[in-house]
Amino acid sequence: MTKFGKDPRPLTAILSEAAQQALAGDQDGEVDAIYIGAMNPEEFTGDSNLASQIADALGLTGVPAMRIETASSAGAAALMAAFQAVASGYYRRVLVVAGEKMTHLSTSATTRILAEVIDKRERACGATMPALAAMITEKYRQKFRLSESRLADMLCGVALKNHRNGARNPLAQFQRAITRRDYFASKLVATPLRLYDCAPITDGAAAVILTSESSEVRLTGVGQGTGPVSLQDRDVFTSFTATQIAARRAYQMAETTPQGIDFAEIHDAFTPFEIITSEDLGFFPAGKGGDAALAGTTAPDGALPINPSGGLKARGHPVGASGLAQVVDVFRRLTGQTPSKREFRRGLTQSTGGLGTNNIVTIVERADARKVANPWTPAPLPTVVAQKSHSVQRETVEGVIETFTIVHITPDGFLAPLALALIRARDGTLLMAQGEDDTQLKIGQEVYVRGIDGLYLFTVKSQLQKVQEAFSRLWRRRTASDKSKKNRSGGAR
Amino acid sequence: MTKFGKDPRPLTAILSEAAQQALAGDQDGEVDAIYIGAMNPEEFTGDSNLASQIADALGLTGVPAMRIETASSAGAAALMAAFQAVASGYYRRVLVVAGEKMTHLSTSATTRILAEVIDKRERACGATMPALAAMITEKYRQKFRLSESRLADMLCGVALKNHRNGARNPLAQFQRAITRRDYFASKLVATPLRLYDCAPITDGAAAVILTSESSEVRLTGVGQGTGPVSLQDRDVFTSFTATQIAARRAYQMAETTPQGIDFAEIHDAFTPFEIITSEDLGFFPAGKGGDAALAGTTAPDGALPINPSGGLKARGHPVGASGLAQVVDVFRRLTGQTPSKREFRRGLTQSTGGLGTNNIVTIVERADARKVANPWTPAPLPTVVAQKSHSVQRETVEGVIETFTIVHITPDGFLAPLALALIRARDGTLLMAQGEDDTQLKIGQEVYVRGIDGLYLFTVKSQLQKVQEAFSRLWRRRTASDKSKKNRSGGAR
Repeated sequence: MTKFGKDPRPLTAILSEAAQQALAGDQDGEVDAIYIGAMNPEEFTGDSNLASQIADALGLTGVPAMRIETASSAGAAALMAAFQAVASGYYRRVLVVAGEKMTHLSTSATTRILAEVIDKRERACGATMPALAAMITEKYRQKFRLSESRLADMLCGVALKNHRNGARNPLAQFQRAITRRDYFASKLVATPLRLYDCAPITDGAAAVILTSESSEVRLTGVGQGTGPVSLQDRDVFTSFTATQIAARRAYQMAETTPQGIDFAEIHDAFTPFEIITSEDLGFFPAGKGGDAALAGTTAPDGALPINPSGGLKARGHPVGASGLAQVVDVFRRLTGQTPSKREFRRGLTQSTGGLGTNNIVTIVERADARKVANPWTPAPLPTVVAQKSHSVQRETVEGVIETFTIVHITPDGFLAPLALALIRARDGTLLMAQGEDDTQLKIGQEVYVRGIDGLYLFTVKSQLQKVQEAFSRLWRRRTASDKSKKNRSGGAR
Repeated sequence: MTKFGKDPRPLTAILSEAAQQALAGDQDGEVDAIYIGAMNPEEFTGDSNLASQIADALGLTGVPAMRIETASSAGAAALMAAFQAVASGYYRRVLVVAGEKMTHLSTSATTRILAEVIDKRERACGATMPALAAMITEKYRQKFRLSESRLADMLCGVALKNHRNGARNPLAQFQRAITRRDYFASKLVATPLRLYDCAPITDGAAAVILTSESSEVRLTGVGQGTGPVSLQDRDVFTSFTATQIAARRAYQMAETTPQGIDFAEIHDAFTPFEIITSEDLGFFPAGKGGDAALAGTTAPDGALPINPSGGLKARGHPVGASGLAQVVDVFRRLTGQTPSKREFRRGLTQSTGGLGTNNIVTIVERADARKVANPWTPAPLPTVVAQKSHSVQRETVEGVIETFTIVHITPDGFLAPLALALIRARDGTLLMAQGEDDTQLKIGQEVYVRGIDGLYLFTVKSQLQKVQEAFSRLWRRRTASDKSKKNRSGGAR
């Protein structure tokens, strides 16, 4: 891994450094192929034809090279494809390298590129990744009946833990623990998420060599799943089906269960995603991931350390690199290269592509990893819904707020604060809408929605009713006064 | 395959149509995963997170999906990765779908995006894909001592054959045969390449289902190789090492040889590439591919039909789709879905990424394909060079034209005609330079090169010398006349 953070070098140089490190730490030093993970080098750095570029940059011109992309889980996907290539017997040794360069662009440009993974209709409303993550968080809060302050404590707990862990990771972007005060003083990005709930913008790369030869650490399980791109197409908001599908396959393949995992690196691009994912992976019951974080269960000395590396939150999040950096961190902890008071034998990584739309779970273990005695019965998977159509209507429809957020850091062209809500219309379909007002928003609130130029605008019903009522009153009064005038004038006649 | 050409639908709809066709033609209809090939949907259509989008669009949300990219061979790379996934036993049935949408952009915008696969320094000189292909063609002409008209006849022969073949392919973009007159009347893009030497800009998608179950047609060989991205880093210009590496592996795996191939689909993004590649694949000796094309050997009724589908030239070239469309065409011909007078049993496809930098060869055959009796000894592979450094110098260096072109269709910001040459400096390194003049260019011509603001400019030596000589003459005459004046005036004094 390179030192994550701001890196002035070109993307190819950053990827090459990680690859050279992996090759240097290897006895053989030769590889049959290169599998490269990167999310969007085309737009971040203007790099096309990346696979050939990397073969050249490593002095490995001639060697087969391909690039794999699954949005922000690209690093894990490259490892998975390389695993399949080695497992098939087609290659014996594959170099996997993944990275991204992002910090040279403005925050608004980076946010725009990252937001391209979102459904186009939702982007048109002004939705960003933090905004959608915030809406999922608000739904989680409501579903599990958490007070605003209880939820904030949980998110703060995850942020503090991961920054504390990052402070011990020399390759992390942030190497400073933060305080509760720092957390609550950080600005709101999209309610209820603050700046310290969001992973930073980062440059960096990671690399591993996968070989069919016997090795002290083995990749024993890997699984992938997808989920609806659009929030409007989802039935389930408080868990990621893509992770549940991926985890089942990975556990099954590794012949283990959540109880067999000693520690995990989880995609905490947003602190609530660490909580939700820890539930999706079967570590904690639904709605209990936050309690576990607050109770210290997921701290480095807890029963199940999560993100001992600092996670995406503190290690940094060069999008294409993160899924592979997690595996490098697990490898180092398993082999003792990262010092630890405890001995870890089996680690799990979970990487999220987009808004939980393309997730990958990997299990990596030492030969002496303990077997799990008891079989595991995973909770039944929710039915993944087929896409519904939401034709933009011009008439006003009535509905109820399914979840919402108030976006304080908006994309270019949208004024802050921007109220966004997912509305469930009377016919059961969901639609993303901008609020005409950002007050009085609450899940379950009844609203009117108007379709205008392909966009939806919503108004909280009670407000409209108030206006209508005020109008009616005014009207009645005027009519009454007209009448009385008439009467009076009539009387005068 | 969709009908290639101009397609008004969004990229996801085009990919979905191809995928739905493959699923509909399948008894089982269920797949374990989706592997997607696309070169640059980020910049062509603003589509990120394509793998999840396609799973959604197909109503297969939940199913693992990943996108593979190797520039213009992405479709073949997706098939290769899917092959490895199925061969490993990880998946039983994989849907492979590849496509691109390009025609909605202006030609200059498309040319710019396509040119991003080129080395940045070469792009800075004004190099485009056709310009570099033209320089390779000129070098081929010189190496094999072909007259300009003989080369033009060969290229015209390939163009006429492929358009004739495309006229019989209902899914091809161009379904009209062209005449010799059409060919020679078409405008020069970059000498010696004309418009009819270049594949068009196209929308389209192709799909196949790969299964581990027994099937009438099997993928028996696949190989990949890379080559230097920069022309300046190459030792060999008249063949693509990446193809040679890929072909060796594919033949070896399929236990066959060039003699065992009944017909081939070759990446003819430029007509000379069909000729060069037919040599790299071992079908014809080096320098003889053009003769074979002229002799009718590669015509549909010849000994080795090449691009009976029309090739990229006439079928069209939606960049990410082409590598997979070739396989669909081979499949259809092997199964008799594409009517043919002859029975074909083993077909080969060759796909090129970038300027021959990431090439893939695939062999697909029927169970009754004949075995090849005689072993094949391929020509030794040239040593693939490591990258050399070309620091931009401010002083003038001397060198010799290695190859050149005059670009008539230039990228935005460059005036046409633009002379570009690859110059071999005295120290043996190569550098790409713009000509100060577009006349008198010839391979082997001596030049002066000046480095200015990170760019190189060259002047043909003889011209400079002429100017210098003219100057010297003028100077001598003036000096002489001054002297005579002095003498005279002195005499007058």
